[in-house]
Formats: sequence, structure tokens, C-alpha cells
Amino acid sequence: MSQQPAPVPTYSYLGPAGTFTWQALGQVPEAAGAAWRSVSNVGEALDDVVTGRSVGAMIAVENSVEGGVSATQDALATIPGLRIVGEYLVAVNFVLVARPGVTLDDVRVVAAHPVAYAQCRGWLERTLPTHGHIPAASNVAAATSLLEPGSPAQAAVAPPGITDHHDLTVLGDLIGDNANAVTRFVLVSRSRELPARTGADKTSVIAELPDDAPGRLLEMLEQFATRGVNMSLIESRPIGDALGRYRFVIDLDGHVHDERVADALLGLRRFSPNVIFLGSYPRADARQIEVVSQYGDEVFTDARDWLRAILSGEPE
Amino acid sequence: MSQQPAPVPTYSYLGPAGTFTWQALGQVPEAAGAAWRSVSNVGEALDDVVTGRSVGAMIAVENSVEGGVSATQDALATIPGLRIVGEYLVAVNFVLVARPGVTLDDVRVVAAHPVAYAQCRGWLERTLPTHGHIPAASNVAAATSLLEPGSPAQAAVAPPGITDHHDLTVLGDLIGDNANAVTRFVLVSRSRELPARTGADKTSVIAELPDDAPGRLLEMLEQFATRGVNMSLIESRPIGDALGRYRFVIDLDGHVHDERVADALLGLRRFSPNVIFLGSYPRADARQIEVVSQYGDEVFTDARDWLRAILSGEPE
Amino acid sequence: MSQQPAPVPTYSYLGPAGTFTWQALGQVPEAAGAAWRSVSNVGEALDDVVTGRSVGAMIAVENSVEGGVSATQDALATIPGLRIVGEYLVAVNFVLVARPGVTLDDVRVVAAHPVAYAQCRGWLERTLPTHGHIPAASNVAAATSLLEPGSPAQAAVAPPGITDHHDLTVLGDLIGDNANAVTRFVLVSRSRELPARTGADKTSVIAELPDDAPGRLLEMLEQFATRGVNMSLIESRPIGDALGRYRFVIDLDGHVHDERVADALLGLRRFSPNVIFLGSYPRADARQIEVVSQYGDEVFTDARDWLRAILSGEPE
Amino acid sequence: MSQQPAPVPTYSYLGPAGTFTWQALGQVPEAAGAAWRSVSNVGEALDDVVTGRSVGAMIAVENSVEGGVSATQDALATIPGLRIVGEYLVAVNFVLVARPGVTLDDVRVVAAHPVAYAQCRGWLERTLPTHGHIPAASNVAAATSLLEPGSPAQAAVAPPGITDHHDLTVLGDLIGDNANAVTRFVLVSRSRELPARTGADKTSVIAELPDDAPGRLLEMLEQFATRGVNMSLIESRPIGDALGRYRFVIDLDGHVHDERVADALLGLRRFSPNVIFLGSYPRADARQIEVVSQYGDEVFTDARDWLRAILSGEPE
Repeated sequence: MSQQPAPVPTYSYLGPAGTFTWQALGQVPEAAGAAWRSVSNVGEALDDVVTGRSVGAMIAVENSVEGGVSATQDALATIPGLRIVGEYLVAVNFVLVARPGVTLDDVRVVAAHPVAYAQCRGWLERTLPTHGHIPAASNVAAATSLLEPGSPAQAAVAPPGITDHHDLTVLGDLIGDNANAVTRFVLVSRSRELPARTGADKTSVIAELPDDAPGRLLEMLEQFATRGVNMSLIESRPIGDALGRYRFVIDLDGHVHDERVADALLGLRRFSPNVIFLGSYPRADARQIEVVSQYGDEVFTDARDWLRAILSGEPE
Repeated sequence: MSQQPAPVPTYSYLGPAGTFTWQALGQVPEAAGAAWRSVSNVGEALDDVVTGRSVGAMIAVENSVEGGVSATQDALATIPGLRIVGEYLVAVNFVLVARPGVTLDDVRVVAAHPVAYAQCRGWLERTLPTHGHIPAASNVAAATSLLEPGSPAQAAVAPPGITDHHDLTVLGDLIGDNANAVTRFVLVSRSRELPARTGADKTSVIAELPDDAPGRLLEMLEQFATRGVNMSLIESRPIGDALGRYRFVIDLDGHVHDERVADALLGLRRFSPNVIFLGSYPRADARQIEVVSQYGDEVFTDARDWLRAILSGEPE
Repeated sequence: MSQQPAPVPTYSYLGPAGTFTWQALGQVPEAAGAAWRSVSNVGEALDDVVTGRSVGAMIAVENSVEGGVSATQDALATIPGLRIVGEYLVAVNFVLVARPGVTLDDVRVVAAHPVAYAQCRGWLERTLPTHGHIPAASNVAAATSLLEPGSPAQAAVAPPGITDHHDLTVLGDLIGDNANAVTRFVLVSRSRELPARTGADKTSVIAELPDDAPGRLLEMLEQFATRGVNMSLIESRPIGDALGRYRFVIDLDGHVHDERVADALLGLRRFSPNVIFLGSYPRADARQIEVVSQYGDEVFTDARDWLRAILSGEPE
Repeated sequence: MSQQPAPVPTYSYLGPAGTFTWQALGQVPEAAGAAWRSVSNVGEALDDVVTGRSVGAMIAVENSVEGGVSATQDALATIPGLRIVGEYLVAVNFVLVARPGVTLDDVRVVAAHPVAYAQCRGWLERTLPTHGHIPAASNVAAATSLLEPGSPAQAAVAPPGITDHHDLTVLGDLIGDNANAVTRFVLVSRSRELPARTGADKTSVIAELPDDAPGRLLEMLEQFATRGVNMSLIESRPIGDALGRYRFVIDLDGHVHDERVADALLGLRRFSPNVIFLGSYPRADARQIEVVSQYGDEVFTDARDWLRAILSGEPE
């Protein structure tokens, strides 16, 4: 990073170069000629966005094996002013690496980013049944930590190709439990400009329930169902003040410019004491959302015209 | 009725003077100095409104014992351009009358308006177990039909006080099965001006389901439930083209000027292929509608402001 | 009717011979060699069943144009011990009849039951624009009145087939305004034996809501929806004690011997303070109920086996 | 562990002695005189149970700050034959410890398990603004590392009570950023015997949706809502085969011996293609479940008696 005001926009990502996040950022056309800022955790990446140091931060939100990334979900729930502006998918697999001369028999502790660790758990538990685990800040950091003096770990889970950059040897190749594992990333910014509607969009929100009366979650989901809005994701996260209190991270099919989504958000906002709109953005898989005719835009505008006529005393 | 264009507004009602409908019209302040036009059935009364012959028609919609008045409900569903502008309650009871000299033993057939008949069914079946029934066009008409030559009926169900006006004798007094029976009337007009919101209002609609897939009625009711709108009445009426096809006559607590009601109507209009807005008007019982804070007007306007900010790129 | 104990079973119906109810009873194989008892109203017919005078009563429950028959619905709700054991459909159309030699040109006054008159009004007003109307106590009575000396009417509205029983000639055939009008009848008995399951069955119940809290009807309907049970009919009827209190007359697709229906009835019984099981019986239209595999009988028995294993400590 | 068959039952836990899991196991009366087997991860602990090496394994399922423990949830979903038999809560707080004689002024580097470090970061940044961090493999390992020669750290983040086991002194007490942080543990066994109903019970299940049609989750939740069964937890976990496919980890209020819970499980089993019953067991907080009268046991048995009478032809 230059000390001068950047002549080009800056994007933050969980580095260093070579991480899956780095691969995800490579998919963003606008990032091609921009400055890339490597950071060591989600909090730092989002702080760059909040302070204006970066125009965007690429962060992992979900893995097809490990599930939602808690740190990301909690950061998006608690840091105000953030918006998701894009979604990206990266296929993931792993190798187990060690310093030259180390063998599997020497390994008692494995350094690994928690998400990577979870995806290799089967292989690790079969191959190293009594190993311990030290979480690392990134997949690359797990590998490079082995080279530091006093490292408590003897081996690390790392992305394939790590040995091109570091003096490490591979103890296990393609050790991921699921060959089709994918990680989903989002690009986060402070921009309040909504990405254009493409017909293949997602809308992300975080919402709390009004209280813990039975059936409250059902009531919340009815806000979507009664408008024909499908949820592609719902995850509960502890609010953190007490056991049993949750907020819900929700992805909806469609864009806030879709009438049915906008109306569902109105319903959600009325229902929930705390709703965060995280953004509407094109889906990484570019799959067009099929909307049954009952929930098409013109159905909503027709209904509004009808109500307006009633309220103004004109013929409906 | 004058042959000249009426210098005062005219109200139509199921006559003659003395009927329960006549009593209901007596509760309308605007009808005090107006012309009252006695008609012989609901169709005629509504036709007066449609053609402009009358500014309003008083018609019965429901009885606490007999239920909804089918003729009224079907007329409101099929005659376009009508609006309910007021609701009125009349306590109802009945006498059994006959021509002088006739005794209970002589009675084989009873003339009665169907609603009145239903309300006296218990007494009639106990007292005259093998009687037949001829429907009459009104309670007063049932009584006066006895005086016509060739009348097939020997007795009639009529309102108390009928003997003040006609040479009839009472065979049974207060023969209604339910001493607290009440009939609910509505005043219907062509005016598209909405009665002012009072906080103790009703909104009436008629709606069809989109198809006969299982659960469709449930879906329709969710339009109300998700906005905290209570239904005080739901009745199914055959559409008439085939067995098993129904429309629903629905009364909602609240006024279309209540945000939650307006929003529920939007949802209903989107869901249903055919919705008729019959009006918002003060409840006859003047009972204030209690709205839980979750569904207050400001909750709706706040949500709209929030969505508008999102759509316009301003801070929410 | 013989004063002696009937040597054959007796069936009660709204007579006399030739009425639509009489036609419905003609569809019952068991009634072929039985005694037929003509009565003059629903209460009398059901009383015959309750007292054991008849083994069954044929009563109208619904007309495709006029809707539910309130008297029937209320009687089934309030007279204990009755069961519906069969359903029958009768096409409802009318003929205009006169004494032999009378032509349309001779007709100045038409005798008709008021309900029948209403259903033929279109044809009558087109064909006999200046006719008068004399009400009759039943469709058959209208016709037979023509044969009485001094009858003021020259023609009568009557059921087709009236000419099989009486010396009358047809002046107009199929004069009903709705060519597809159908009346639905049920055969009611005291038998507690359930008609066998045919796969094309109906189950009728009457239920009250626990209180008038908002959304109660929705809750009741969910008892059916969560078991994949379709409703073919729902009608509200006033309980009669006060305005705004209703019971619901419900027809379900399926037989109580269908697991999904039995389970829905359990849910309904738990929900409702007052449920009346009116019976499971073959549908008149013999339409097989399609059940999605999710709600098949074996799904219910499998689930019970699974739960039983859990409760007994065996492997599921 | 002895090579001989254990003379006493064995319990596995994430060790070593002093961890929060060890504290949780200390709450189990049956574990008092038993053998305790320290393992290094959840998979090892559950493998001990599956193979019969241990009668029970204590594993963390949820933290009030961090949320659900994915490894535990996924293991319970995929390892057959496991049952939860008890729930335990451990307050999660931390102390900063050092070797005797060391003071806060001496501390430049802090050893800490990364998760523990994250939970104390606020206190550490305020108290030791310039400290460095060395990751450790467990909370106890962080503390014991101080006692090794050449340890680069002068202090460690450790569980309270560490000083009972090691010659260490406390430099900072209750340094966790959230004073009310709690971790929830469950005791897992192979026993198919259900713990007795106490009235303050939980039932845990894992279920998949039948397909990804819109509204499926809503349908699943209705299985609970229509029986008055409250959910205290719902978490989605990826099934792992593809992005967007989830299973749901659900805790219900009540015991499978409660009729409403048993009936809800029947409904769930019918709905879901894959349900795992994880157990019914006493709640750690011993809070009695309040059941509205509508869902009491006798309501269910009454309904069954009623249905049984209908099916057998007896009077209801």
C-alpha cells in the first residue's frame, strides 16, 4: 500500500496471495487494476471498508461442507453501514504440509484455518486419530506458521500450490472430505447504490424475532411465503447476550427491485424489532429466479392501483 | 312517492312500514327527512341504487340465528358499483298470526319470510309438527297474504305490532327461538366516498380463490393474519356455475384507512382473481378495534420509509 | 304408513312423490323395496330417524346456485346421534306444465314454489312477460293445484317427470335459468357403522373455534393442511346465541379410515371445544381422491412404528 | 487407559483436566466414581462411545457467544446410534495466569487458544496494549506451556481453577469480554433407554426437508406449531453434498413422553425424508415447560378415545 492517497481503489482480502479469498477477488472485474490489501481476519477487512481505507472487502460467508462462517455473519450483524454488492464461488481442496524432514508420525498438532480444518476432518481423524488442532488466521498463515520458531504445530492444512511459494513438503494431497467443496464469498462495500437487477439475484438480510413466544419463527417465514419469496439460506446466530437468543441470517431469491421481495421486506421490517438489509446483488451461479405469475411485478402494481382508486374515490 | 323528480333524497327498504328493515332505516339520521321507498325484495332495492332512483338501500345481511342472507350476499357479489356505507342492528322477535276465527288446529301451511321462519323453527316444529312452509317476500307480506283470496297459508310469522295495522289475530306470541336474536342491516349506496375512519370500523370484501388446490383458503386467510387483521365474518357462497366452487364474503375489523387493512387488501387482491371491495364503514356496535402495537399505522409508515431509503440509496 | 311395526325399513323424505328429494331417494338401492314416508320439512325427517320411525332420511344439504341449506346444517349440528351414510346428486331443472289442452297463450297466472319460481324467472319473463305468480307450498303442490277446481293458475313450475304421476302436459321444458344446477342430498341414519372406504369418499364434520382470538380459523384449517387433507366445503353457521359466533360445516376429501383423515380429525378434536363427526361416506360423483405419496397410509404407519421403537427402546 | 476391560464405566471428554468440558463432566453424578478418558477432539470422543470404549462422551454443542459447535452437530447427524442423555451448562470465563513472581508489568507475550484469546481481546488490549500473542492447542496447554523451559510467553489465558492443578498465579480474574458467556454441553451415549420425563425436558432432533420447494421449512415448523411445541433452537447445517442443501438441528421443549411432542415427532417423521431422534433429556436449567391446556396429555388421549369410538362404532 502506498502512503499517498491511493490513486486506484483498494480491495481488502484475507491474504496472503494464494488464499481462496485471493482467488475470489480475482473474479471481480473492477479489482483487476486496483490495489489489493492483504489482511489477517474478517474484522480487519471490514474495518478497512468502514474507515474508507478500501472500497471493498472480499470475505467468505459460507462453505458447502462447513456451513456459515460465523465471524462473517456476526460482523455483518454488528457493524453498521455495510452492503453486500457481489457473490463469488471458489472450489476448495487442501493439502497437508510440513517442514522438510517431518513425517506423518511426527505430527501431534495440526495448524489450520477452522473452515479448512472442518473440511479435512475425516481425513485427519482417520490418518492422525489423536492429533490436536490449532486454529490459524488463514490457510496460508497456517502453512507459514510452521516455519516460525517455536511453532506448536508440526503440520498445516493449506491450499494446493502452497509449495510453489514456501519450502514445505506435502504429507497428504487432496485431503478435503468432499471433492466438490465450494466456498461462497461476498464482496462488501459501504456503497448504498444497489447493484442492478439481473433476474438472477439474491437479497440478504439479518433479522431478530420480536420475542420468544412459540411460533415466532414461523410467523417470520410467513412474511416470505405469503409473497412467494423463496429462502435459499437461513442460519441462526446467537445474539450473544444469553443462551437461547438468536438472530437469523437469511438469503432470499430475488432483488429488492422485485416487487414481491420489496413487499416481503416491508413485512419483515414490521415484524422484526431489528432488521438489517445487507444488499441485493447478482447470484454467483447466475441462475434465473423463476417467479410464478401470481407474484409478478405487475400483480403488485395492479393491486396498488386498485387500492389507490378505492382510497381516492375513483372507480376501481 | 311523488311522480316529480324527488326534491329530497330517497331511500329504498324492504317494506311495508313496520318491517325490521323499516326499523333499521329509522336509525339513519340522513333518512329522517328523506323519502322512503318501500320495495319487495333485495334485488329491487339495489336496482333503485344502481339506477339512481334512490341514494341508499337498507338491506339485511345477517341474522344472529339464521346466518347470512344469501340473496343479499349474492346481489352484492354480482351487481357492480355498490358500496356499504353503514351498519345497523335491530332486535327481532315474532308472532304467529291468522285471520280471525282460525285456530292452531286449522294451520297446515305457514307463510313466512325465510329468515323469520328459520328463527321460529323450534316453536313451529314443536307446536305444528307437520306444517308446510311458504316463503314470503317480507314479514309484513307474509301476514297480509293471509287476507288474500286463495291464500295457501292459514297462518303467518310476522313482527310484533302487526295487529295494529291489520285485522289479524295472534296464535302465538314471541315465538322466536332465541330471545336475543338480532338482525344486521347495511346501508348500500353508489357513493365512492369512504365513510370517515372512527376506530370502530368494519371493512367488507368478497373474494374468490385462484383455484381449488388444497390449502388455498388457508393461504387467503394468511393475508389477514400476517397483518394482524381479524375477520369477524367469513361465509362461503356458491359462485353458481358448478358444485364446489365458492366465493367468500368476509368482514374485517378496521377501515381501509388503517394501514394494516389496506396492506391486507393489497395482499388479497394479489392472491385472488376476483376481489370486490364493498366498503369501510362504522360498526353498529361502535366497539373500538384494539390493534396490537406491532400492526399500528406508524409501523407501516416506518417500514415504507425504511424501504424507500434503501431503494433511493439513502441511509436507512 | 301402517300403524303396525313396519315389516320393511322406512325412509323419510320431503314429499310428495316427484320432488327432487324423492328423486334422490330413488338412487338408494336399499330403499328400493322399503317403505317411503313423505314428510313436510327437515325437522320432521330427522325426527323420524331419531325416534327410530325410519332407518334413514334423505335431506338436501346444498344447491349449486342457492348454497348450503341452513335448516339441514343447523339440524345436523344440534340433533345428536345422526350420521351421514350416503351422498346423492340430483340435477335441478324445471318444466312448465298445464292441464291437457292448455297452451302457452292461455297462461295468465303461474303457480310455483317461490324458490323454483326464482330459478325460472328469466325464462318466465321472456316467455310470459305479463304473467302473474301464485306461490305454492312445494313444487309438486304447484302442479297438483292445477287439477283442483277453481284453480286461479293455468300453469305451474314443476320437476321434470311430474307427468309420470299426474295428467299434465309440458308447455316448456328445462326452463331453469341455470342448466347445470344441481342439488346435493345426504342420507342420514342413526347407524354407527361406517360405510366402507371406497377411495372416493367424503368426511363431514361440524366444529367450533375455541374462542374468537384472531387467526383461530387459520389454526383450524392448518389441522387439515398439515396432513394433506383437502376441504371441499366450508360454511359458517351462526351458533345462534350472539352475533359473531359461528360453527363451521366442513367436508373433507377422504374417509376416516384414511390415516391422514383420522389424524386430521384427532388434531381437530384437540383444537376445537366442540366437534361433531357426521360420517364418512362414498362421494356421489365417485371421483377418486388423489393422495400425494407424502400422506399415504403407509407413511403414517411407518411413523408410528418409528415412534414406537423410540418409546420402547428398540432400534428405530 | 488400562488394556484390560475397565472395571468401572469410562467417560470421554475433551481434556486435559481443567477444561470446560472437564468441568461439565464433573456435573454428572454417575461420572463421580468412573474412569475419565481425555481425548483431543469430538470425533475421538464419539468414537469411544460407538466402539463401547466409553459409556458416555461429554461434548460441547453450543456457546452463547460463538453459537453452535459445527463439529458436534455434524457428528451427531452422521454417526448412527447416538443418543443425548443429559445437558450441562458451564459458565465460560477466563483468568490470566503466570508463574509465581511474574507481574502484569513483566508480560510481553500471552499464550492462548485462539478462541479463548478472541473472547478476552477487549480486556487484553486495555490492560496490555502492546502484548504479543502465541497460539496454544488448548486452554490448559496455554497455561502449562508457561512451566516449560524457554517459554516465549510470560502469561496465559486459562480457565478459572487452573491454579488448583498447576503452580500458577492469577494476574487477572474474569477477563472474558462477556461476563455471562455460557457453553452448553451434552452427554452422549449409545443407551436406547430414555431418561425419565421430569417436566423440564428437551428433545433434540435433526431433520432434512423433502425438497427445496418454497415454503418447505415453514411446513416443517408447522408440525411443531400445530401441536403447541416450542423450539428452543434451530440451526441449519450443510448436508455437505452441494451448496444450498441443509439439514436442521432442532431442540424442542418437552419429552417424547409428552403426547404433544410425540405427535409432533410423528408429523415430522412423515414430513421429512430423514429424521434423527437424538433424545429426550432433562434441561440443564431445570426450567419447567409450561404447556397450555389445549396441548395437555389428556387432550391427546381424549381425542384418541373419541376417534377409537368412531372407528369401532361405539358412541363417541
